Amino acid sequence: MGVILDGKKLADNIIEELRTASLKLTKKPKLAVIIVGDNPASQIYVRNKQKTAQYIGFDSLVISLENNVSEDSILEHIYILNEDKDINAILLQLPINEKFNKKRIIEAIEPIKDVDGFTSYNFGRLALGYEPFSYPCTPKGIIRLLEEYNISLEGKKAIVIGRSNIVGKPMALMLQQKNATVICANSYTKNLKELSYMADIVISAVGKPKFIDSSFIKENAVIIDVGINRVNDKLTGDVDFESVKDKASFITPVPKGVGPMTIAMLMENTLNLYNIQSRLIL
Amino acid sequence: MGVILDGKKLADNIIEELRTASLKLTKKPKLAVIIVGDNPASQIYVRNKQKTAQYIGFDSLVISLENNVSEDSILEHIYILNEDKDINAILLQLPINEKFNKKRIIEAIEPIKDVDGFTSYNFGRLALGYEPFSYPCTPKGIIRLLEEYNISLEGKKAIVIGRSNIVGKPMALMLQQKNATVICANSYTKNLKELSYMADIVISAVGKPKFIDSSFIKENAVIIDVGINRVNDKLTGDVDFESVKDKASFITPVPKGVGPMTIAMLMENTLNLYNIQSRLIL
Repeated sequence: MGVILDGKKLADNIIEELRTASLKLTKKPKLAVIIVGDNPASQIYVRNKQKTAQYIGFDSLVISLENNVSEDSILEHIYILNEDKDINAILLQLPINEKFNKKRIIEAIEPIKDVDGFTSYNFGRLALGYEPFSYPCTPKGIIRLLEEYNISLEGKKAIVIGRSNIVGKPMALMLQQKNATVICANSYTKNLKELSYMADIVISAVGKPKFIDSSFIKENAVIIDVGINRVNDKLTGDVDFESVKDKASFITPVPKGVGPMTIAMLMENTLNLYNIQSRLIL
Repeated sequence: MGVILDGKKLADNIIEELRTASLKLTKKPKLAVIIVGDNPASQIYVRNKQKTAQYIGFDSLVISLENNVSEDSILEHIYILNEDKDINAILLQLPINEKFNKKRIIEAIEPIKDVDGFTSYNFGRLALGYEPFSYPCTPKGIIRLLEEYNISLEGKKAIVIGRSNIVGKPMALMLQQKNATVICANSYTKNLKELSYMADIVISAVGKPKFIDSSFIKENAVIIDVGINRVNDKLTGDVDFESVKDKASFITPVPKGVGPMTIAMLMENTLNLYNIQSRLIL
């Protein structure tokens, strides 16, 4: 059986390190999370982020808004957070109701407080190969996890299935920067199996339970499962774990794989923004 | 033999259309080009851009600086152009001497005057799938040329060889937006031939003369040659035209393929920025 890429364990270690680093600070880094509406999954995510921040020793602020709030009112909250010197990091919990102009709201976040790296400025710097203020948390966490297990990327073929702005697109860009050859697949892709079968590293972010089985992967492939699908109240990934586990050389579980890494990277990004802002004030 | 994708003809048509549109304007769009140093190829490119702008009826301004100019002085020129209400479009001719911080200089250009789309803000909007003020000229010209010949991209496999910020990276992002499956290859790619052989569309931007021969392409592939290599004072592309021309379904020549389209798109981008800025003033 392939080695389990233990995202939970690595994330816990990173969180402990952040906690140690945080104790030495004279002022607490502060993360603001804006959540709009009452999506139960989003509420759980936000609570986890808040709890982790508190454990590390960060301050956090959650702004909960109803779905009937005006878009201007959401923007107003962001402007206030942008100006507030005590706030280092701002996160808009996604998804938000489609009636809102998501891109306009995200764009209102000051790039230097954009902890997800989703503003045009930060995303552009990432795409151009310049360091952004923040790298998007999920792909950053995946790269970190691969590095932890000494899985090299240079010259490797990686397929990224899915092209969301949150995972697929930044993942493909970051893999290219690590000198991987990247195949960017989407819902229009033909012969997906054939392409996936060529890949040394398969990263699935499509949101379909058990979409990837052993017929998609070659012997000794590395499998990264970004899917978080709820089936009968149970979390399951995009990958049929039982089907591929013996063929893969490394594989992330769901849960306890990519998910915890995303939260750990969010915390690291928060501290990073705090440090950048502290240097600017000096 | 494959159909020649006649970039020169399409570019000429676009330039004529821009000329007609330009005649109706009360004020002339104005393009500023900054050139640093005395690279002979760059000087020819700048002269061509200036001549084309004048032909269309645009105003143009060329700022020629010596290589021993200070970086701050280049930035100062950009700040003045940013503020100048008569200037609609600013272009930094590349390459510039490596002693300069290219990214800092490009970033100084106001995104709304960034005619190449190379600032983080515009590149980020492109990457995120939001409309930038300008799309980079070369990949935009290639997409336009493919559209002109009714070559569909949806569900097609395209390989982009090369990952520069000017061509390869924005090309891959734009192809993805057109629902193509994109293989992003670079100098570390292994089995390039095998990958290229799978592709319906091969886009080469590596800068090696006759790098792509018929062994790289499958029957009826579409070949886009972005290479501009000077061999014995003659322009030659990345593609061995004679070797692939009978196998390809469509192919761009060098010269008169991608090159003229790049200039035509620069002119279209200039008019587009003029129009955006005019609307903002009203």
